[in-house]
Amino acid sequence: MSMKLPPRTVERLSKYRCLLDRFNNTDEEHISSRKLVALLNLSPEQVRRDLMLIGLTGNHRKGYDIKALVGMIGRTIDRNEGHQVALVGIGNLGRAVLGFIKKSKTKHNIVTAFDIDKNKINARISDVRCYDLCEAGRVIPDKNIPVAILTVPPEAEVSTASLLLQSGIRGILNFTSVHLDVPSGIYLKDYDIITSLEETGFFIQE
Amino acid sequence: MSMKLPPRTVERLSKYRCLLDRFNNTDEEHISSRKLVALLNLSPEQVRRDLMLIGLTGNHRKGYDIKALVGMIGRTIDRNEGHQVALVGIGNLGRAVLGFIKKSKTKHNIVTAFDIDKNKINARISDVRCYDLCEAGRVIPDKNIPVAILTVPPEAEVSTASLLLQSGIRGILNFTSVHLDVPSGIYLKDYDIITSLEETGFFIQE
Repeated sequence: MSMKLPPRTVERLSKYRCLLDRFNNTDEEHISSRKLVALLNLSPEQVRRDLMLIGLTGNHRKGYDIKALVGMIGRTIDRNEGHQVALVGIGNLGRAVLGFIKKSKTKHNIVTAFDIDKNKINARISDVRCYDLCEAGRVIPDKNIPVAILTVPPEAEVSTASLLLQSGIRGILNFTSVHLDVPSGIYLKDYDIITSLEETGFFIQE
Repeated sequence: MSMKLPPRTVERLSKYRCLLDRFNNTDEEHISSRKLVALLNLSPEQVRRDLMLIGLTGNHRKGYDIKALVGMIGRTIDRNEGHQVALVGIGNLGRAVLGFIKKSKTKHNIVTAFDIDKNKINARISDVRCYDLCEAGRVIPDKNIPVAILTVPPEAEVSTASLLLQSGIRGILNFTSVHLDVPSGIYLKDYDIITSLEETGFFIQE
């Protein structure tokens, strides 16, 4: 369902769910849209529109049923059992990303890592086996992996991305600041540390 | 100038600049808005509107003068000499972020790190001295640091953020998936790895 959801909506749905996790061990069964708004710095219209898009309206008195909300967000943004994901580049950033994802509740699962460092190849890092990057063309189709997280040094970025696309990767989460040209049909999400820092630096001006 | 720029515009301006860096060592002096559009997957209206907001219009035949564009973006989004930044949490993620920022051309500068690990306190990591987190209340005002990058484990997040705000931090770039409530006047930028992965996973669906 809902293939027409815009990226920003999917991003916000994922955030609503993270936030609602906080209420898991409390007695609260409902949350008002006003509270969601306050906790996430969004407008009330935005929140109501997002939730109506996935077929939910709140009860006027009680607000949204938290369990129903979490369930419906899950049915919308988690397809089937989640995707197999390859982590490409096992430096500090790669290890940090691996730890984050292993600890989170996302259904997506890092099943394989790639690197070019002989000391890492064939090692297991947080239970994930690291392969030689030049084996990507065999391992990625074999394991049916559609998503790659790219945490390689900037200078290796473009050639690595092109190798991944040739191996059948259809979505890339790109952690380097390097711009990638990808063919249409490939989903590229740039996750740019420098841009975020510059935005923060800009807006703290008094 | 331009305090009214929306966050998304600042984010895009920073991206335009990253992209234009590629033309630094080439003979090309101009870039058409069509080319910017194609390289960044934006609409032509979006690009023209962003650049008009900072006072630039392209030449109909030649497009935008690259040097003028980079200069004007810099004068808009880099204030003065950039900010002093504290990096809070020197694990894998912290080290990766430090490396990224040191290698980049951003004017913002990580001048201090904080951690609670006795083995890291007083060490220098990539030329940055690490202090005991409990000294934040003295070091941050002393060094006049307005921005903090938070790369602590999720369970330490809320108490650390509150300590930073008490120490005078006005902008936080938050790398954990934990939601923070910050007072108005504080700029919080969430940089959420899980949300980005879920968005990528969603959109690769065929």
